[in-house]
Amino acid sequence: MQVNNIGWSEIEEKIARKAFEKAYEREINALIEEVRERGSKLAELDQVWHLHDFLSARRHDIDGKYDYRYSVLIFVFARLLQEGWLDLDELKGLEPDKLTKIIALARM
Amino acid sequence: MQVNNIGWSEIEEKIARKAFEKAYEREINALIEEVRERGSKLAELDQVWHLHDFLSARRHDIDGKYDYRYSVLIFVFARLLQEGWLDLDELKGLEPDKLTKIIALARM
Repeated sequence: MQVNNIGWSEIEEKIARKAFEKAYEREINALIEEVRERGSKLAELDQVWHLHDFLSARRHDIDGKYDYRYSVLIFVFARLLQEGWLDLDELKGLEPDKLTKIIALARM
Repeated sequence: MQVNNIGWSEIEEKIARKAFEKAYEREINALIEEVRERGSKLAELDQVWHLHDFLSARRHDIDGKYDYRYSVLIFVFARLLQEGWLDLDELKGLEPDKLTKIIALARM
């Protein structure tokens, strides 16, 4: 499956940017909510270090995942779909070929 | 100033252990309180990553600081005094020579 070097029209770029930002916003809000929740329940040192470990992992994950380069966007969207941060409807308007690839990758 | 290879009597060991644990308990409780406070105020991603940086630094600091070996205890107590986690009164009963060294180091 050829997923690099795919051209994106101006309309597709707008759709992609919006979907990307929406997914990011959702994931960040969920993270803030979870940290707030965990923070409010802290009672022991172990929980503090677990929170630290959790944040280390989430930071690494989020830093790597939200890569807005058109050469990797098909993979990024597939992962965001798979993880539930993005809905297929939000990619409506992309070329059918791209959607097919995203859906196929998300199912892997 | 010779601070290694100092002998500790059984009574001194009891005083030292109690003071060490008290300081640790205070610092840990203050940390838990601060993380809880920061957690409850989280509103933006930047604050989440600042919390992560803060926890990384505190973990490194606390892991290194609370070293209960008699060969380094004079230094540990000096630092705990300096940082306010320990009160001089709580070391009462240690040999005057040790107290003098701890106080001198704490003032450095």
